[in-house]
Amino acid sequence: MKLATYKDGSRDGQLVVVSRDLSTAHYATGIAHKLQQALDDWNFISPQLHDLYVTLNQGKARHAFVFDPAQCMAPLPRAYQWADGSAYINHVELVRAARSSEVPDTFYTDPLMYQGGSDDFIGPCDDVVALSEDFGIDFEAEIAVVTGDVPMGVTPDQALHGVRLLMLVNDVSLRNLIPAELTKGFGFLQGKPATAFSPVAVTPDELGDAWAGGRVHLTLQSSWNGRKVGMCEAGPEMTFHFGQLIAHLGKTRNVRAGSIVGSGTVSNKGVTGANGKTEWPKGYSCIAEKRAIETILDGKPSTAYMQYGDTIRIEMKGKDGQSVFGAIDQKIAPAAA
Amino acid sequence: MKLATYKDGSRDGQLVVVSRDLSTAHYATGIAHKLQQALDDWNFISPQLHDLYVTLNQGKARHAFVFDPAQCMAPLPRAYQWADGSAYINHVELVRAARSSEVPDTFYTDPLMYQGGSDDFIGPCDDVVALSEDFGIDFEAEIAVVTGDVPMGVTPDQALHGVRLLMLVNDVSLRNLIPAELTKGFGFLQGKPATAFSPVAVTPDELGDAWAGGRVHLTLQSSWNGRKVGMCEAGPEMTFHFGQLIAHLGKTRNVRAGSIVGSGTVSNKGVTGANGKTEWPKGYSCIAEKRAIETILDGKPSTAYMQYGDTIRIEMKGKDGQSVFGAIDQKIAPAAA
Repeated sequence: MKLATYKDGSRDGQLVVVSRDLSTAHYATGIAHKLQQALDDWNFISPQLHDLYVTLNQGKARHAFVFDPAQCMAPLPRAYQWADGSAYINHVELVRAARSSEVPDTFYTDPLMYQGGSDDFIGPCDDVVALSEDFGIDFEAEIAVVTGDVPMGVTPDQALHGVRLLMLVNDVSLRNLIPAELTKGFGFLQGKPATAFSPVAVTPDELGDAWAGGRVHLTLQSSWNGRKVGMCEAGPEMTFHFGQLIAHLGKTRNVRAGSIVGSGTVSNKGVTGANGKTEWPKGYSCIAEKRAIETILDGKPSTAYMQYGDTIRIEMKGKDGQSVFGAIDQKIAPAAA
Repeated sequence: MKLATYKDGSRDGQLVVVSRDLSTAHYATGIAHKLQQALDDWNFISPQLHDLYVTLNQGKARHAFVFDPAQCMAPLPRAYQWADGSAYINHVELVRAARSSEVPDTFYTDPLMYQGGSDDFIGPCDDVVALSEDFGIDFEAEIAVVTGDVPMGVTPDQALHGVRLLMLVNDVSLRNLIPAELTKGFGFLQGKPATAFSPVAVTPDELGDAWAGGRVHLTLQSSWNGRKVGMCEAGPEMTFHFGQLIAHLGKTRNVRAGSIVGSGTVSNKGVTGANGKTEWPKGYSCIAEKRAIETILDGKPSTAYMQYGDTIRIEMKGKDGQSVFGAIDQKIAPAAA
């Protein structure tokens, strides 16, 4: 099942069911107006949404319309929780290697995760608004799950049963604000502005056998200003799977329905090329990583962060070549005058 | 105006208006069911709630009932944002002095703030449930504001206009989990379990001239196991006022209606006693501070953190001696078998 939230001028928008091929959609009116409402009462509401989904895919839904990602808010336009892991340890290794800092041993057994702001998400085609280019604007291409109610103290395997939906994320980061912020010791705040999500959220069954072991075994594509810069495999190198991430979050508290848990930047290890040098043929899912690679190879970064007018497109295709979640497709913009 | 949320088995409870003296209440049914709904449309809904408040205070509300704090959820049982400052620098100074670490100069000009979980708040009389006493269970008595919509990049003075409501907070902390968590660099996650709030949230006008300069000029009382351990003045020593805290949060993103912004542990400086030694006659608003004081005086802490069965009561009285927010009154408990 694929779900999206259409803009209607309200804070939470209108829940729509989207066809598997993302060509058509249908308002879920009469079943649930808002996605959070469906998540709050999933066992009752989701079968009804699924019935509509089946009818829509058969081309028999009476009030179907052409699906337009530009009309989408984030599937959850605001949420009660957004906690983002850093589950691809290669990302941490790269960034640390660039500043000659070791990765602590515990990072391989204890997930790194930060609590993010969730009151003001942006849609897949909304501008990334920043008050200054000097903030060091970067994208971060990630995967996230939306959970049901998961009780405190669950095991990673139990936690996996709490996965209701999956989405793509652009976890926008303001790199030049982050070092000073992290030095203060309380985590990210100003360094992480509004986060963007893919047009649709999908149930795990939509991924078929690409959803295995709590990981998504597909390729995450990132295109910066129209140039493909990342073709990263999201499956094998995810050090902690989504069940482990949810269980980590739930160690001391309940994780309630509608919580969003992210994977962190999808990242693949470098390989040794024919000339004996390390290469990163899969590219990168954030500019910070590109700059880390440049620092490792050349002693300093040469790629600048994003400027106003830059675009970023993040997408993932299934084994059939079709877009699973629709594309995040954003432009960097100054605040409106 | 004073507002509370009554338990009704649902996730968001039922909005009630509470009389100024906290003796009676009235369902806001017909105006708004949920507090978030009122915050989303404050200019339209709050005057109607205020009319009911006036009628209730006059003893003329037809379906008024006796107000029972034990029936309360948090005023916002779940929220889209919970960001907690550390606005009483004395708290930071004490904790750092105990571990012989200097407070960086920037801490006096740039607020310290962490993003907290907001999907699963607990009511003022709900148990604080912890899976282990070894986590180092501590209370933290604080004040928080609930905001309206505050746009990105506002000044502290502008941000103050965004304050809709005030509450008390028990920002429960698991002290023994925090050092390792903060060392990882991404802020608090497991160290901060479910947060509790006072029975009622009040509009700033309820504080009269005790609400001045973005600070609450009243005494925050904390009683641990029935013994008064803190009588801390919340006004003069709040280094950053609430407008500054909201503006800090809003530097790179919009702060949307229903966001909760906390003050951090209310803390007063020590004074030099007759014997030339430093004393802390106002007591403490968290045990970590008591232990810091012990470490400074005796070289090591002697007060243990909370055990199952311990109680904590947090309250603030107005200049008329009446409780402003009602009391947070909780017991520490193991998870249900």
